[in-house]
This record gives sequence, structure tokens and C-alpha cells, in this order.
Amino acid sequence: MPITAPSVAARTDAAARLAGLATPPGALGRLGDAAVWVAACQGQVPPLPLDDVRLVIFAGDHGVAAHGVSAFPPAITGAMVRTFLAGQAGVSALARAHGVAVRVLDISVDEDFEDLDTVRRKALTAHKVRRGSGAIHLEDALTPAQTRAALAAGATVALEEIAAGAGMLISGDMGIGNTTPASALVAAGLGLPAAEVVGRGTGVDDAALVGKTALVEAALKRAGDRTSDPVETLTALGSADLAAATGYLLTAAEQGVPVLLDGLMSVACALTADRIVPGAAAWFAAGHRSTEPAQSLALDKLGLEPLLDLGLRLGEGSGAVAAVPVLRSAVALLRDVALLSELGI
Amino acid sequence: MPITAPSVAARTDAAARLAGLATPPGALGRLGDAAVWVAACQGQVPPLPLDDVRLVIFAGDHGVAAHGVSAFPPAITGAMVRTFLAGQAGVSALARAHGVAVRVLDISVDEDFEDLDTVRRKALTAHKVRRGSGAIHLEDALTPAQTRAALAAGATVALEEIAAGAGMLISGDMGIGNTTPASALVAAGLGLPAAEVVGRGTGVDDAALVGKTALVEAALKRAGDRTSDPVETLTALGSADLAAATGYLLTAAEQGVPVLLDGLMSVACALTADRIVPGAAAWFAAGHRSTEPAQSLALDKLGLEPLLDLGLRLGEGSGAVAAVPVLRSAVALLRDVALLSELGI
Repeated sequence: MPITAPSVAARTDAAARLAGLATPPGALGRLGDAAVWVAACQGQVPPLPLDDVRLVIFAGDHGVAAHGVSAFPPAITGAMVRTFLAGQAGVSALARAHGVAVRVLDISVDEDFEDLDTVRRKALTAHKVRRGSGAIHLEDALTPAQTRAALAAGATVALEEIAAGAGMLISGDMGIGNTTPASALVAAGLGLPAAEVVGRGTGVDDAALVGKTALVEAALKRAGDRTSDPVETLTALGSADLAAATGYLLTAAEQGVPVLLDGLMSVACALTADRIVPGAAAWFAAGHRSTEPAQSLALDKLGLEPLLDLGLRLGEGSGAVAAVPVLRSAVALLRDVALLSELGI
Repeated sequence: MPITAPSVAARTDAAARLAGLATPPGALGRLGDAAVWVAACQGQVPPLPLDDVRLVIFAGDHGVAAHGVSAFPPAITGAMVRTFLAGQAGVSALARAHGVAVRVLDISVDEDFEDLDTVRRKALTAHKVRRGSGAIHLEDALTPAQTRAALAAGATVALEEIAAGAGMLISGDMGIGNTTPASALVAAGLGLPAAEVVGRGTGVDDAALVGKTALVEAALKRAGDRTSDPVETLTALGSADLAAATGYLLTAAEQGVPVLLDGLMSVACALTADRIVPGAAAWFAAGHRSTEPAQSLALDKLGLEPLLDLGLRLGEGSGAVAAVPVLRSAVALLRDVALLSELGI
């Protein structure tokens, strides 16, 4: 589906309103720019308040986690999914503080959640593609059919959230090992070697960082020319959860719903979405700068500057949720500050 | 009054709780540090939510405004005070968005607000010290008695807000020309020449910047050795509104109520408060990085790193108010995230 850019007319009107506010020219800094972007996305000046912001967390396991790329064992993925369901994770606390709705989906966790009650389990696993994704240095992450299924799952989820009233979407992640395929997606998308993109994830030591870099390099070599196609890149180097998040972000852009991006996983998927349909990134803003080099590199490529830079590396969508009130500040300024012309100053 | 440092015991307990959360070590970045600071200030682990945050805007005119240091005419000060009262200024919009109470005080505005109704005028001018402060390159800003009166006014206001329930205080400013005396306070406090501290304020051009720098240099020369004493520095180089804000910040620290600092005016007063009673700055956090060089220099001296860096230069307390939800994110994480020990992971 082609992507329509945010409204140029609304952008122009919003910039004119910004210039007419009872504030010195340029005094709102990047909040002014952010407010104009929201208005352009909404096609509405002044912009509407960002009351209905929704986070979807795409959870999945990764074959690489058995190969020393993470400081944590794979069983943590499912445990953290339960922590989201209990509302006790980091992003749960942030989302409650800032009125953001949270939905968690098991796209490819390597367990069946049979301990959960039927209703909850059904909602959690409604879009499950497989148990775990392939170890990308040894095998493709997915079959082509699984990639299509995961992209479609993400699209369906985005359409559901938009139909339910979302004015802004956020993608979050959970999956031990997930910075490895995400870094590979960025390396593939930007044509960079593994050494330039790989970071410490949740905190691996120097030796593990060397191993992780070699693993991504091997994965890139194994994928070969297929990295020139973004969907084949997901098949070879991604995972079901990352493919689903990509479909979700792409669909938000297609539907004209703005997105606040989170850290590496979210931005790797945004980069991939923008490769699938160039122009998607016009619907994305960057919530925070993560400590992962691949995230900053991909943001540069997308032309996005994060609102927050707090050294966060929690994942889960947390950096984007923490940035929601910053965007709300931007919208409040463009909506509620008097116009100089009204004050008669 | 001597200043008691934030609780070491609470800081230690809070750091231990942070380390025990169901998040990877260090993953909360500077939000973790901020949460520990709030807990230490409150002497409470986990910290209480920052529900009652109050901004006091100290308004005043400045003799230097008649000497080409601002892009705006002095009459704007009173007009903006009326805009605050009407809830239509930049900081009004932000404060409404984030549930921060706003109080505006005419400390030294060069008009009498006779158009306001009696009740409103009385509240606005209850702590008025004088009409305008002196042009600091030509004369002292204040008499010593006026400096004492302004410091006492700020102290009284802080005590009132604390008695009414404030859990955190913010100082805001309004006054055409106020970056000039504020820059002089920072230059005096840090022993730096005018050229290193002076910035463009609300946006003066190159020629005016040269004039503003020369004016601050002349003021520093005129003040001479008196800059070694922080209260005499306020008399010579400050203003009534800046002295009142200094008294307010100092009293917050003395009372053990944490402060979120704003831009140049707020930070110049914080620096002065910490010169008057060393240790005051332990009660201060930095809301945002302003575009004024003096603000960054003073923050470095106080050992504070801003939470936001968005190119804001609106004044009014706006950068601090925009940072309130970032601190609330920090508190929410330390309060509401599960402990690993509870999850049995």
C-alpha cells in the first residue's frame, strides 16, 4: 500500500501558528518542531491532545540466545511476558504513570504459556507465528511464509488498535537475544559491517561482545545478497517478533497514524518498514536515544532525532513511553498558548 | 540556616532497591539515578509520587533593558505577567498538561498593575520590592536593604508553598533583560569573563550580543571585589526578582524540599544560593539544558546534568515543568516495578 505523507497544508498552518504564539521566535526549540509534526500527521491545527497512545509489545525468542549473545537465559522472555501481564515490568510502571495502554503479544516465545488461564492465553498467543526464531548465523530466522504471516500479524494488530481509537502507536519488544537480529537488520539496511552496529544489549562483557559481533558478521555473510531486499532480510536475519513489529509500524504509516519509536528493536523495524515502503519514516518520531550504536545509526538514516537521551537500555518500549509526555508538552504548547495577535501586545 | 544533606540512608536503600528491580543492571540509566535522588530527598524508599509540584514565577524589570540587551521592549514583562494570570503563556500550557501549580509574583515589575482587580493585584504584588532594578553597568541593582527584603520575600514564599503541601518546587522567571543580570551572577560566581557566559537571550543579533557582553563586562568591573560575596553580588549585579528566587531556592534546600531547576535565571539563582550556603545544590536537579552558555557553565559547577535537552529558551520555568514527567517516570520505576526476588525469576 502506498504511503501518503503527513499533510503539507497542516504543517504549513501549524508552523504559522507556532510563529504567531506569544513566545519569542524559536523559543520552543524542538518542542515546536515536534508539535508541527503531530499537527501534520493529524492534518489538524492546532493538533488534538495525544490522549489515546497505545503500546504493543512483540515478544519472541531467538535461536542466537543459545550462543552467548546475552547476559540472560532465554527463559527470562516468558517470565517477563508474565510480568507485563501482571503490570509489574518497567514499561508497565511508565505506562501507568503516563496513561499509555499496553498490549503484549507472544509472537514467537519458545514456550506455550499453558499455566495462563484460557482467555488470557488466547489473547496473548492469538498472533503466534512459531516457537522461537532461527539462530541467524546458522540458519534463516524464518521461512518466507512465516515472514509473511508475521508481517500480516503486525498489520492486523495495528489496524485493531487504530480501529479502537489509537491516536499514536508505540512498538515495544521482549526477547532475550533480540538486539542481535535487530543489529543485523540495521547492518543489512545500512550496508555496514557488524563491528559498527553491535552493542552490549542488556550488558554483555567484552568477550561476549566479540562473540556477538562475529555472530552478526557470520549471519550477514550467510544472508549474502538477500539483504538488498528488506523482506528477505527479515527472513534471513530477523525474527517473527521483529517482522510483526515491522508490519505494525508499516501499517501505522499506511493508515496515517503517527508512531513514537523506542530503542534498537523498534528503530530496526522502522528502518525495515521504510525500506519496504519508502516514506514510512515520515510518520515516525524518535522517543529516546538508546545506548546501542545501531539505534543511533538507523535514526540518522531515517533523519530522526530522539526527544530523550537518558542512557536507557531497558527495551520493552520504555524509552518511547517515557517520551510521551514530552510530545504532549509539544502539543499543549501549540494548542493552548495565546497568539500574540490575541493579546494585543 | 545550615543545610542538612539528603538522607544517606535513604539513598543507600534506594540504590539497593534499584539494583533489585526486575530490570537489567543499569538499564534505567539516568532515570535510576534521578529516582534515587528523589528518594534521598524524601528520606523515603520507595519514594512518594511527585503529585504536588509547584512553580513560582518571579517577575521583574531590569534597568539594562533600556540599553539594547533584549530583542523585546520592557513593557512585555507586565503583559506576560497578565498572560500568566490568564493561564495563556507557554508555561501555563505545560503546567496544565502536567498538573503543576503556578503562582506568579511581581517582585520588581516597572508598573503598578492598577488595571487588575484588588484581590488579584494584592496577591500579585504582595512581595513587591521596587519598580524595576538598577542598570547594573551604571549602578547597583539594589540597595543592600532591598536585597535582604527580596531574599526574605523568596524565603517566605517557599515556606508558604511548603506549608501548603509542595513536594517539589520550581522557580520561573519573567523580565525583559533578565538574562543580562543572570549572566553577570554566573560570571561573578564562577570567576569568568563576560565573553564566556553571555548568550542571545530571547534572540538578540550579533551587534546586540557584542553590546550585551560589553555591558556585563562593565558591570563586573564596576562591582569589583564585591563579587566574592554572593549577597553583595546580588546587590551589585542581580535584581530584586533574582534575589527573591535565590531566597526561595535556598529556603527549599534548608527545608529539605527538592527543587527542579529551569534555565539560566533559575540556575544562576541556584548557583548563588549554593554560594550563600554551600551544600544547597544537593537539593537541586536540573530540568533542562538551555541555549544560554552561562546555564551550562553553572550546572557544571553545581555538578548537575539536565534531564532534557530540547533547545528550549522560553524561560518562565517552562523547561523545568516539561521535565516534571521525566522525574515522575523515574519515581514510578523505583516504586512500581517488581523486585526480582518477588518474581522468583
